[in-house]
Order: sequence, then C-alpha cells, then structure tokens
Amino acid sequence: MKKVRIGLIGAGRLGKLHGENLAHSVKEAELYAVADPFMNDDIREWAASMGVEKCYSDPDEIFKDPTIDAVFICSSTPTHADLIVKAANAGKDIFCEKPIHTELDKIKEALDAVEKANVKLQVGFVRRFDHNHKAVRDTVVSGKIGNPHIVKVTSRDPDHQSMDYIKVSGGIFMDMTIHDFDMVRYLAGSEVTEVFVYGAALSGAGYDKIGDIDTAIVTMKFENGAIGVIDNSRAAHYGYDQRTEVHGDKGAVWVGNDFNNTAMVSTGESVELAMPTWFFLERYNDAFIAEAKAFVDCVLNDKPSPVNGNDGLQPVRIAIAAAKSLKEGRPVKLSEI
Amino acid sequence: MKKVRIGLIGAGRLGKLHGENLAHSVKEAELYAVADPFMNDDIREWAASMGVEKCYSDPDEIFKDPTIDAVFICSSTPTHADLIVKAANAGKDIFCEKPIHTELDKIKEALDAVEKANVKLQVGFVRRFDHNHKAVRDTVVSGKIGNPHIVKVTSRDPDHQSMDYIKVSGGIFMDMTIHDFDMVRYLAGSEVTEVFVYGAALSGAGYDKIGDIDTAIVTMKFENGAIGVIDNSRAAHYGYDQRTEVHGDKGAVWVGNDFNNTAMVSTGESVELAMPTWFFLERYNDAFIAEAKAFVDCVLNDKPSPVNGNDGLQPVRIAIAAAKSLKEGRPVKLSEI
Amino acid sequence: MKKVRIGLIGAGRLGKLHGENLAHSVKEAELYAVADPFMNDDIREWAASMGVEKCYSDPDEIFKDPTIDAVFICSSTPTHADLIVKAANAGKDIFCEKPIHTELDKIKEALDAVEKANVKLQVGFVRRFDHNHKAVRDTVVSGKIGNPHIVKVTSRDPDHQSMDYIKVSGGIFMDMTIHDFDMVRYLAGSEVTEVFVYGAALSGAGYDKIGDIDTAIVTMKFENGAIGVIDNSRAAHYGYDQRTEVHGDKGAVWVGNDFNNTAMVSTGESVELAMPTWFFLERYNDAFIAEAKAFVDCVLNDKPSPVNGNDGLQPVRIAIAAAKSLKEGRPVKLSEI
Amino acid sequence: MKKVRIGLIGAGRLGKLHGENLAHSVKEAELYAVADPFMNDDIREWAASMGVEKCYSDPDEIFKDPTIDAVFICSSTPTHADLIVKAANAGKDIFCEKPIHTELDKIKEALDAVEKANVKLQVGFVRRFDHNHKAVRDTVVSGKIGNPHIVKVTSRDPDHQSMDYIKVSGGIFMDMTIHDFDMVRYLAGSEVTEVFVYGAALSGAGYDKIGDIDTAIVTMKFENGAIGVIDNSRAAHYGYDQRTEVHGDKGAVWVGNDFNNTAMVSTGESVELAMPTWFFLERYNDAFIAEAKAFVDCVLNDKPSPVNGNDGLQPVRIAIAAAKSLKEGRPVKLSEI
Repeated sequence: MKKVRIGLIGAGRLGKLHGENLAHSVKEAELYAVADPFMNDDIREWAASMGVEKCYSDPDEIFKDPTIDAVFICSSTPTHADLIVKAANAGKDIFCEKPIHTELDKIKEALDAVEKANVKLQVGFVRRFDHNHKAVRDTVVSGKIGNPHIVKVTSRDPDHQSMDYIKVSGGIFMDMTIHDFDMVRYLAGSEVTEVFVYGAALSGAGYDKIGDIDTAIVTMKFENGAIGVIDNSRAAHYGYDQRTEVHGDKGAVWVGNDFNNTAMVSTGESVELAMPTWFFLERYNDAFIAEAKAFVDCVLNDKPSPVNGNDGLQPVRIAIAAAKSLKEGRPVKLSEI
Repeated sequence: MKKVRIGLIGAGRLGKLHGENLAHSVKEAELYAVADPFMNDDIREWAASMGVEKCYSDPDEIFKDPTIDAVFICSSTPTHADLIVKAANAGKDIFCEKPIHTELDKIKEALDAVEKANVKLQVGFVRRFDHNHKAVRDTVVSGKIGNPHIVKVTSRDPDHQSMDYIKVSGGIFMDMTIHDFDMVRYLAGSEVTEVFVYGAALSGAGYDKIGDIDTAIVTMKFENGAIGVIDNSRAAHYGYDQRTEVHGDKGAVWVGNDFNNTAMVSTGESVELAMPTWFFLERYNDAFIAEAKAFVDCVLNDKPSPVNGNDGLQPVRIAIAAAKSLKEGRPVKLSEI
Repeated sequence: MKKVRIGLIGAGRLGKLHGENLAHSVKEAELYAVADPFMNDDIREWAASMGVEKCYSDPDEIFKDPTIDAVFICSSTPTHADLIVKAANAGKDIFCEKPIHTELDKIKEALDAVEKANVKLQVGFVRRFDHNHKAVRDTVVSGKIGNPHIVKVTSRDPDHQSMDYIKVSGGIFMDMTIHDFDMVRYLAGSEVTEVFVYGAALSGAGYDKIGDIDTAIVTMKFENGAIGVIDNSRAAHYGYDQRTEVHGDKGAVWVGNDFNNTAMVSTGESVELAMPTWFFLERYNDAFIAEAKAFVDCVLNDKPSPVNGNDGLQPVRIAIAAAKSLKEGRPVKLSEI
Repeated sequence: MKKVRIGLIGAGRLGKLHGENLAHSVKEAELYAVADPFMNDDIREWAASMGVEKCYSDPDEIFKDPTIDAVFICSSTPTHADLIVKAANAGKDIFCEKPIHTELDKIKEALDAVEKANVKLQVGFVRRFDHNHKAVRDTVVSGKIGNPHIVKVTSRDPDHQSMDYIKVSGGIFMDMTIHDFDMVRYLAGSEVTEVFVYGAALSGAGYDKIGDIDTAIVTMKFENGAIGVIDNSRAAHYGYDQRTEVHGDKGAVWVGNDFNNTAMVSTGESVELAMPTWFFLERYNDAFIAEAKAFVDCVLNDKPSPVNGNDGLQPVRIAIAAAKSLKEGRPVKLSEI
C-alpha cells in the first residue's frame, strides 16, 4: 500500500493529537519524523511508542529529508507562515493548523510560496469534518432547502482559557470566532462582504482589562445575498455549544449538540438527559481523524485541498473586520481590509 | 361566580377567536356584546350561538352601556388608539390587540387616557402566554441560568401574507418583528437600547418593489448589558418557526417548535418526524386562551396588567429604530427615537 | 345548522368532562339534558352555566323525550349495559364510556339491543383519538412500515388510584389494561388470539392483599400473525407514560410522551427537559374532544361508529383471558373465553 | 509502561476488529502474536502492519509461549470452550467471544478449568460497554429510579445474516437474543428464573424451513421480583434498533438509538432526521474498545472480570429455556435447565 510519509512539526497538545491519529487511524499515512524546538525524552518516548523513526529539535531536518512527502505544522501560531514557506520551498505538501497567521501580509507570503511550489496546503478548520456541520453543508449542497437565506452559528466554549493564552491570542475574533468565520463561509458557500459586531465583557473574568471581550454577536452579509449571524461566549459553563443552521427558500436544516449518551431519566422531580460532550477534544474527536484522512487522500490522489489557502486567508480578513466593527461601532465592509 | 362582562369590538378573524375563547374557555368572562362596523347576519348568528345578547355596528353603544366592565379591541390597527381613548374615558378595562398604533404620538395619547382613567390595559402580545416561551422566561426568572448574556429569537412565518395587507402593514418590523421585539424584552427582562439590522428581499415575491424586505437579522443591546439577535423570514415554507433562547452566565435554556405529534417513522429510506404546527392559530391556540384568562384575572382581582401600556409602546419604538437602521446602514440608539 | 340533541347520563368527573366538551367544543352538538341519580344544586348550576335546559335524577326522562337524538352514558360501570338497552329501545344513538360491562353476557345483551334497534353505539376508547397513537395507526394504514410484526404498548399511570375504587374495579386488566387491549387491536388491525401474563404486586401498596397486581407484562398473538406486548404499572411516579410502537417488515413507527413544553435547560450540573403531561385529563384533553366530535359526526352523517360494539366487547374478553393466564400461569387462547 | 502481551486466536472479522483495537487504541496492550488455522499472506500482512511479531496456524504456539500474558479467543463458536481450557491450563488470562459454547457441559468444563487455573476470563458481551446501555445500568445503580420493576430490551438486526450462518448458529435465541439475555441480567442486577416466548417466522425469508424464527417476544421473571421483556427481529430494515429501558418504583430510564448526526431537515414535505447507525460495527465501535480496555485493566490490575464465567453461562441457559418455551408453548423455569 502506498503511504504518505509525514513529518510532524510541533508536539504540543494538538501536535500529539494529530500524530496519534496519523499513526493509528489513517492507514495510508506513515508518521516518520517529529520535530519540536523543545524536543525531550517525553516526546521521544511518545514518538517511539508509535514507531516514529526520527526525532529532531530543528524542523529543517524534516525539510531536508527527501523521503518525507508532507508535513503537519502544529507549532505556535506565529511560526506557521514561515514554516509554510520553508516547507513549500522544500516541495512538501502541507497541513497547517489554523490560523496561518494573524497578519495578512504574512499569510499572502505563505500562500505565494505554496502557489509557486505547486504543493498542497490544507488549513486545520476541523469543524468542516464534523458529522453534524458536514450534514448541514451536505443538505445545502443537495438543494433540499433551496438557496441559503440565513446562516446561523452558535459557538460557545465551556470555560475560560488561561489569561496568558488569551493575552497573546489576538482577541476573541482571531482565537475563537475564526472557526465560525470559516464555518459560515462553508455553510453559505459564499464570501462574507460586510460584518457588524455587538460584543461585551460580561463574565467578570477581566477581558475588558486586556482590551478583549467574552460575549459577541456578529452579523454579516454574503456575496450571494444571504445574511448570517454568529453568537459566541468564552465560558458557557454547561459544555461546548456548537450548533449550526441554514435557512433557505425551500426549507431549513439545523444541528444540535452531541450528548454523551441518549439516556432520558424520568422521575417525579425531573426529566434529565445526558450532558453534552465537554469540549473540542470530545466533540471533534472523529472530525480530527476525518480531517487527517482527507489530507492524506488529497496528497495521495492529487485532489484539490478541501480547505485551501484562500480558506485560510478569508477568516483572518473577517476577524480583522470584526475587530474594527467592534472598535468603531459600525458595519465594516471586507473591501476595507 | 362573579364574572367580567365584556364587549368585543371587531369581529374579524382575531376578534372571533377571542370571542369564542371568552365564551367557551374563560369561566369568569361573560361575552355580552359585539360591535363591528360591518355588522351583518353572519356575525349576528355567530354571536347568538355563543349567547351574546347585543350586536351593534357602532362601538359607542358598548362604551355607553354601564353594565359592561371591559372591552376587547380587535378592530383594524389604525383604529386601536382612538378606541382605547374612548374606552378609557368610559371607564372600561381594555384588552387591545397589538400594535396600539404605528405612530408614537397616537400611542402616547392612548396611554395618557388609560393612565388618567386608571383603567387596566393589556396589549395582545400573545406569545408571552405560550407554554414554550413562558418556560424560557420562567427559567430566567428562576435564576438557574444566571444573568442573561445572549437572547435569541427565531421567528419565521410559514408563508407570505397577502401583498394588500403587507402594503399597509407598516413594514416587516411593524407587522411581524414587533412580536419579537416584545419577546426579547420579556426574555431579557430589560429594555433595548440600540439596534442594528441586516435585511433583504430574497424570496422573489416582490417586497423590494414596495420598499419592504422578507428576511432580516436584527441585533441589539440591552440596558442590563446583554446582547440579542432576532432572525426573521416572511416565508419559511416548512412551517411556523418559533424558537427562543437565553444564554446566561450559569447556563442556557432554549425551546424548539411544537410538532403535530411525537411519531418517529423509521424506514430504510428515512427517519421522519411529524410536521411542526402550521401557523399561529395552531401554535398559539392555548396561549390565546391563557392571555384572555390573564386579562380577566387582572380585571377581576385588580392585578397589574401582565402586558401593560409601556409593553405596547416599546416594541413600536424598536420597530421604528430598526427601520431606520436598515435604511441608514448603521446602528440606531433607541434614544434617537 | 343541524345539531345533535344530547342527553348526558351521569355527571361525575368524566360526565362533566364530556358535557363541557359537548357544550363548548362540538359545534354540531346541543347538550340539552342531564340526568344523574344524585342530581343536586351543584350539578344544576353547572348544567345551567352551559345552557342545559333539563335536569333529571331519572335517566328514563331522557329516554322518554322524543326530541333527544342521542345519549352519553357516563354513569358507573355496572349500569352501562342496562342503560344501553334502554337507550337502544328508545331509539337513541349511544355514546358509552368503557367498559360496557365486565361480564360478557351483559355486553352481548346490550349489543343485541343496539343491533335490533339499529342505533349507533360508540364506546369510549378515547386513546384512539389521541394525536400520537392515531399517528401510529395512520402510519400502519399508509403501508409505510409494511405488515405489522410487533405491536408494543407502554401504559403506566402516574400514581395509585384509591383502593376503594380498585377493589370494585375488576382488577388491573379490566380497569387499566383494557385501554391497552383496545389499543393493540387498533394498531395491529387484527384480533388477539392468545395472551400470556407475567404480573406482580411490587409497589408495596397492598394490591396482593386484594388479589390484584400493580405491574404486568402481557404478551399476545394476533390473527394476522403479528405478536405484541403491553407493559403496565399502576404507579410510575414520573408521570403518565403512554407510548406505542409498531414494527413492520418495511420499518417501524413509535411515539413518545407529550411534555409540558419543549424547553431544554442546560447547566453545568444537568440537562433538563420539561415534565411529561401528568395524567389522562392533561394528556388526552384534545382526544376527548375529537372523540365527541367523531360521535356527533357519525350520528349526523350516518357513518359507521369509529369504536363499535365489537370494539367494546373484545377488550373485555382479552381482559378475562389475561386474568386467567395470570392465575393459571399459562398462555390462554381467546377461544377459551 | 507495563503492558499486557496478547495473543489473538482467530483472525476473522471480529478477530481483526479486536486486533486493531488492541494495537491502536489500548495503550497498555501489546498485540504480539496471531494464530489462525487458515493463516495466510493477507493475515500476515495485516498483522505486520500493526507490528505483530508472530504469526501461527496453530494456537498451541501461543499457549506454549511463556512471554504471552493473555489471549483473545475469536475463533468459531464450537472451538471456544476447548481453547479456554487450553489457555487456562497454560495460565493465560482469557478474553473469549460469546457464546462460550451452546452446550452447558462444555461451558462448565471450560469454567472449571478457568477456576482451577485461577486465571481471568472475560466474555465478549460488548453491549455492557456501550455508552447508552451503560448509562441505563449506571442510573439503576445510582438508585435514582429505585428498585427495578420492569426491564425492557428492543433488539433488532438491520438485515438477514446469511442462511449458511443461521443454519449452524443454534437458532435465534443462541445467536442473537443471547446478547439481550445478558443485557437484561446486567440491567436488572438479578438472575432470570422463568421465561415465556411468542415467536414466528414472519419475514418470508424461510426461517420456518430450518426450524427457526425471525421475530420474537420473550418475557421473563427475575429473582428480585422484577419482570422483563425482550423483542427481536432479524431484519428491521430501517437500521440496527437497540433500545433498553428500566422502570423502577421511583422513576424510569430509557435510551434510544444513536444517529449518524443530529441534523433536522425541515421542508414543506417532511421533517427528516439522520439515519440510525447501521449495524453493530458502527453502533458498538467505541464499546469494543472500552471492552478491550476493561479486559487489559482487569489483567494488569488484578481486578475481577467485568463479564465473568457465570455471565457467560447464564445467557446460554436462558437461551435453552427460551427455545424450550417456544417449542412447548409454555413458560419454562430456569431450574428445569
């Protein structure tokens, strides 16, 4: 069986997740090398347990190895764009975690390198591979609900991330809503042309002190005439709330959350259901595997990337426009960005 | 048993609905007189079948009758405010269908008369009495989900109303979203301070030709810091879509639609559920009865009106602000109105 | 409008329910007379409030009145059969609460009188008119799920009835499961040919002391080859549990319970739904009205009774067979009864 | 990390499933050897892809290897008991697919060997590890619903298995209902004391010609006084129907099926949900992994087997009693078996 030989760059939480999926759940992938600037015995042991042959601290070792077909870039966000350039120049196909970068110039630089080298680039918008959101998109594509008129995304994290992370994350639109900006483009099948934001720091956790917010409603217009809305909370407390919906001129489709099981417990006091799956590791577990399979399939069979460079660029542009809307209290056209 | 003697003004579709509910389902109500400018044999026969004693073409006959305690104003919208003034001056307690008027001056005139006469006024925002939306409000009040952060209303009609009606209705925000403006105030327990609208005529039914739209997303800020969103469609085709949701700092509550039954039909081709209840007559049938009971209770036991004059006024102000936002492409503060 | 003039016999809880439905919710019915052996001022006042003209202690007054078209027999169970005979002999169409009688001879006597007089007889198996169970039957009839193979009924009361009632009720199969025996015949579209019972007194409420049980599973064979099962509890505590299901060779259909509303409350501790509707008055409220309308329609338009004499007879036969099976610990053929 | 070194016996469909789960999803397992009487290059390649070092046609090679801690017996049913004896005599801990054998003597022989050797034995009743059924059991154990009164299992396969398999499978109770006999014991927390069966060959697929049936309702009594019912179909066509339920004196708990996603598609014609997961490989995918983890945990940490020898024995006894009941048309006590 022909396999794609892969070098993993970055062995943090998400890097490890991808590495294990490649090793265990993607038959046509061979996880061959791991590079991490903080390479240590723990990572080496973890890598060995999956049969990884090479461990490096310098990702250049991966780019230099002509037997490696593709790379998974899972390092810290600021390094993504430069690593994409290097990988492209080395002729490697590329899976890169989102976002490519928070600055448009750096993204364009990376995309230019990819285009010039004619390699594959898939950006890690994993939710497109979720069984629920994909069912919404598939229904839209099927024509069952006609032309999309209203696109809705509810996206709430179960609890606060660390403030250290939040401070350098680029703000709610860049670290959290960016997934939803990808989702609305995916569901609408059209580009966002304008956004307007109402947002606030309501949780009392101190986001206002660092110039950020924890609660937002973002509305938008699409090129195809549809309109859309995203609502976000950084700390829903009751679990990870990930619902999407498209309303068209013939019908509507919506998906609810996944629950830990389907039990209904009915007593004289209450009717209780199981809790929803807690956070993205539980909710998008299968989607991460499907995402990696899609990348390997696209490399192996020379298919177009299911989440390409432009799909990496546009959500960042929308995030920048959203931040501007919040700051200036007015609708912002994407053409301004 | 002490009963409230009621005169019904306006025997159109909604007038008849209220009349039958008062006659059959509200034990402490006595439907005693009906007035309609187009009084005819059909209306007389309908009234007789419920034991109504008096039929008039002129509502003044009702105001003049000292034995009548209260009136239900169900005539055409432009007549509401003047009839409220007359009823108040005659000392009658008043139930009035929504909206009181589309002009703020006329509403204020009516509310002044009500205040001066010290009579009850209940405005017909029937959805507050729906089992589902009431459950959302009750959950908010219970404190279970903490302070409201995000309030969401989905409100879509199953099909186009007649264009003749739409032309004189005052536009989507005045004829349709007005219910939702009441709903968000009710659910948030707070006043709207600012709105922003994205809207479009997407159905192809010609709303753009008469300066109206058929699809809208309205976002808003509340005095208590919460933010909210309403999405509307004039023709959802799949049924009446009436869902509400509040997300607070301890949890969230949401309600789905009502369905005709709970059957799940599972075959090799599909898993089908029953259709949702078709339109407001089916969906809010019980709410109309609960609304009438609440009015009779408030009259009989001298309780405060559950939907008072200010509740009649504010949604009209928000509708005017929303129309301004759509026209001017900017957020509009309620203080401007 | 042509109306059916009706005399109500028995003004207890169920009699009053039927009386109010006839007076308020069935347009083509005229509730004209009420007879109750314990006629008193309360009943008279209740009757007057609905415009009833005649109140009697003796039902014969109703039978003697040639202007009365039909009767509703809602008196105590032992009197049903004799009243049917009298009503039939007087040429009245008859609605009779279930069961007709607990003895087969008395039922046959009543049915003979009905047949001889050629009047309508509808037996009060109200659940056939419930939106959920009717949806199951309609799906079976539609052919969507093919030929029925398995018929299932879950039927549990929320709480114990009074022991005084239970002692004279004829036992669980006659007072409670009889509804389910009707339901399985209705859903299967076929006659029961054999039953087997496992039952026990598990609640600790003392049913064993009076020779009765509180928990039962009844299995059965149908003439058309299908098999079925009913499970019962006299005290489910969590509400009225009324679910039905048919599995055929092309698919299956099932209905769940009705809930007070569709709210889902999601917090860090639990996901809660609304409570199910409490008991038959709440759950079958609309079904009682539909049942009365069906009777009036059958009388007025000379249609066959939707729940005829044989439908009254068979469940009693099955109940007798079930009691025998429980006592003798063996499957009992209906042909033995 | 200490690992359990495992030899897999039988590399058919289920053997491969277990092998892959052990290799990829159970960190503390080392899949070291595979034995299959039909060992060939395909199996060798499959084994090699997971890093398995030894491939044999004779399972004795596994028993002889002192470095192997435990075996997974996934060979054909008639070989299970003898392999258990050999494995036990070799001191290996044992995971064995169900059933141990269809004859009680052979089962007892195997259990005696296990007891004498004092090794672990876990029988492959995988459904105990399903998130849904486990939630039912956990709810019972929690005491939330009180003492179990009624236990219900619906278990229907989506389509016919091959007639070649059916002919040698031992009949519906031994090849299919056996899972449900385990399930009712698990949910009730009590032994079955008596069973009664109604069954028929209704599908037209010819089960009657080979002395088998395709549709069954099995009712039963438990030692703790509860009663129960299982309904089966060999070909539900609409998917794998696996629902369980326990009704106790304080409440009830039930689980529905798993669906491919949570999408609701609502149009003017229908409201559709996603299809249920197709068959046991999809539905019990995670349960197979949980089962293997539980075995490895029990071996590694010397815990009692979660599905022990008696759990392997009892369902076979109930299956024999059920077949007897069907044949003789009477309730059969387990004490007769």
